[in-house]
Amino acid sequence: MFEATIRAGRLREVLDAAGVLVDECRIHVCDEGLLLRAADPAMVALVDITLDAEAFESYEADGELLGIEIDRLAEVCRIADDDSLARLELDAEKRRLHVDIGSLSYELGLLDPNSIREEPDLPSVDPPATVVLEGEHLDRGIEAADMVADHLRLRVDDDVFVIEAEGDTDDVSVEFTRGDLLEVAPGQADSLYSLAYLTAMSRAIPGDAAVRLELGEEFLAGIQYEYAEGGPAVSYHLAPRLQTA
Amino acid sequence: MFEATIRAGRLREVLDAAGVLVDECRIHVCDEGLLLRAADPAMVALVDITLDAEAFESYEADGELLGIEIDRLAEVCRIADDDSLARLELDAEKRRLHVDIGSLSYELGLLDPNSIREEPDLPSVDPPATVVLEGEHLDRGIEAADMVADHLRLRVDDDVFVIEAEGDTDDVSVEFTRGDLLEVAPGQADSLYSLAYLTAMSRAIPGDAAVRLELGEEFLAGIQYEYAEGGPAVSYHLAPRLQTA
Amino acid sequence: MFEATIRAGRLREVLDAAGVLVDECRIHVCDEGLLLRAADPAMVALVDITLDAEAFESYEADGELLGIEIDRLAEVCRIADDDSLARLELDAEKRRLHVDIGSLSYELGLLDPNSIREEPDLPSVDPPATVVLEGEHLDRGIEAADMVADHLRLRVDDDVFVIEAEGDTDDVSVEFTRGDLLEVAPGQADSLYSLAYLTAMSRAIPGDAAVRLELGEEFLAGIQYEYAEGGPAVSYHLAPRLQTA
Repeated sequence: MFEATIRAGRLREVLDAAGVLVDECRIHVCDEGLLLRAADPAMVALVDITLDAEAFESYEADGELLGIEIDRLAEVCRIADDDSLARLELDAEKRRLHVDIGSLSYELGLLDPNSIREEPDLPSVDPPATVVLEGEHLDRGIEAADMVADHLRLRVDDDVFVIEAEGDTDDVSVEFTRGDLLEVAPGQADSLYSLAYLTAMSRAIPGDAAVRLELGEEFLAGIQYEYAEGGPAVSYHLAPRLQTA
Repeated sequence: MFEATIRAGRLREVLDAAGVLVDECRIHVCDEGLLLRAADPAMVALVDITLDAEAFESYEADGELLGIEIDRLAEVCRIADDDSLARLELDAEKRRLHVDIGSLSYELGLLDPNSIREEPDLPSVDPPATVVLEGEHLDRGIEAADMVADHLRLRVDDDVFVIEAEGDTDDVSVEFTRGDLLEVAPGQADSLYSLAYLTAMSRAIPGDAAVRLELGEEFLAGIQYEYAEGGPAVSYHLAPRLQTA
Repeated sequence: MFEATIRAGRLREVLDAAGVLVDECRIHVCDEGLLLRAADPAMVALVDITLDAEAFESYEADGELLGIEIDRLAEVCRIADDDSLARLELDAEKRRLHVDIGSLSYELGLLDPNSIREEPDLPSVDPPATVVLEGEHLDRGIEAADMVADHLRLRVDDDVFVIEAEGDTDDVSVEFTRGDLLEVAPGQADSLYSLAYLTAMSRAIPGDAAVRLELGEEFLAGIQYEYAEGGPAVSYHLAPRLQTA
């Protein structure tokens, strides 16, 4: 059985972070909490989200796998206040998730988990360089790059983290020195990434979150952050674009 | 002669409530005040609005009939502050309504009242059940139903008022018990209504208004409310949709 | 050489005021400051903007001529706070303008000034009448006229300034008497102007600016204002529309 109670806003954080890459996803509800891992249809990026059982007001689960259409469940959360408690209960037989929020009862039809692409493996490579900065700083840099091009370069130069973009007529670069960064572990790092993905991720990341970037040369970048007060931990991975010579 | 002065915001309330169903309407200006009754082109819903002469700062009328294009007069009210006084004066000969608001003089061309569909009769059936609830609660229920379907069911079950909708994959219901309701007179009530109409009405209803619903089985629903501080009294009637067996 | 530092918001004021009429413009950077003059492609209106060297935090220029695509430079200013300092430096050889704002470095590709239409001459006719009023009052009048027509009449009647518009069914007029006006020099003035231009200009004019209107009969109107605290001085000229008999 799966039966749990959680703040509506907390559940929405999980769905917003996943919705950056996919419309439908498989959510595992295990003893330790909720797990969600998915790759976007183009297989350029993946997202891995965990939400500990402790983040729930109450939580009981037997390792069920739920097939969720993200937008529909997110919309239910959105018409409630963030602090409203949402009671979730799986009706495995009818393949439905009951969602009760105050006077509202919603019966969400679940998807067959087997009809949804299986979870990709998580990459495990030691990153040559890592930097940690605030979400809003990252967002500002991505927004600046977006003015001139559809891809950007993430580069670490000694202890300076650089976001660069080259457009047809204009170039832009934003530099973050040690004073701007929460942490920096310098190393060889210089890769191009698609702005479409980064812009969508950046919109989901709270401005005050500490965002950890794992970077390298032509490197599958890691982008990690946690929501405040024991909220979901999110890890994106984004494949580099080929350098054009 | 028709000559009157009224707060611009007050006049806009009348026009907003009528605009839910029609683009053009006939407004009667009688001794007792302003009367407006109209049915939507599909004849599914009707609106009946009265605004007492006392709601005007000054009021003189001889039972004239004004043919009004709602959007145009509403737009004039909108560029003024709600508290500005609008002076209205009919020029019957030129078929124009002078509207003076501060330094603004607007001459509104009137429509020939005979070119506008005549007022429908008001239904007079005793409703089997009535409930009264706050506008924003009704709105929340309608919004929830709108997530899954294009019609909803309004049902009274003992002293519980239920808004329900069944979609292709998801169902939703919102229950209002005695504690949530301002009044309830239980009775047999269970009908389907179109969400397109209810959503439009709900947008016009102020969140803090007490909304009286007259309900029954396959029943022409009544939806009544008044604007604050002696503002217009509005009564909608909405025909039920056929139950699909 | 051209090298200057200025608040980002100040630079944006120049670009917003010019962007009302043109997408690309020539900016002269002279000893005394920045000069920008341009006519719209239809040659109906022209804009003349000056920003004194004193409005810059630092300023060095040798009379260079910069070919600017307005939207791109305005977008750079927009992602910065209005109070951030923007450092501008011309790379004449590469025909690029370096823009540094905090950690952001932007290289703006300049247009060939010779590819941009040359500056029109400024008209020099003594206006028969002038009025000065607040930007938000002018805006309110233009908005009112826009409800009924696509052009309006600006008229001075003794010491009353009148904005009028005649639509197919409705007419509107807004009167500003001596009490509403900051200044008035009465004279013969009665001309029609296109609302498309006036609406765009009005959006650029700050609500609290004192706007000087130079008016006459079938007259090339002058519309002048300054931004607060030593900001750019802007002068529009707008050709009249022919009176339809």
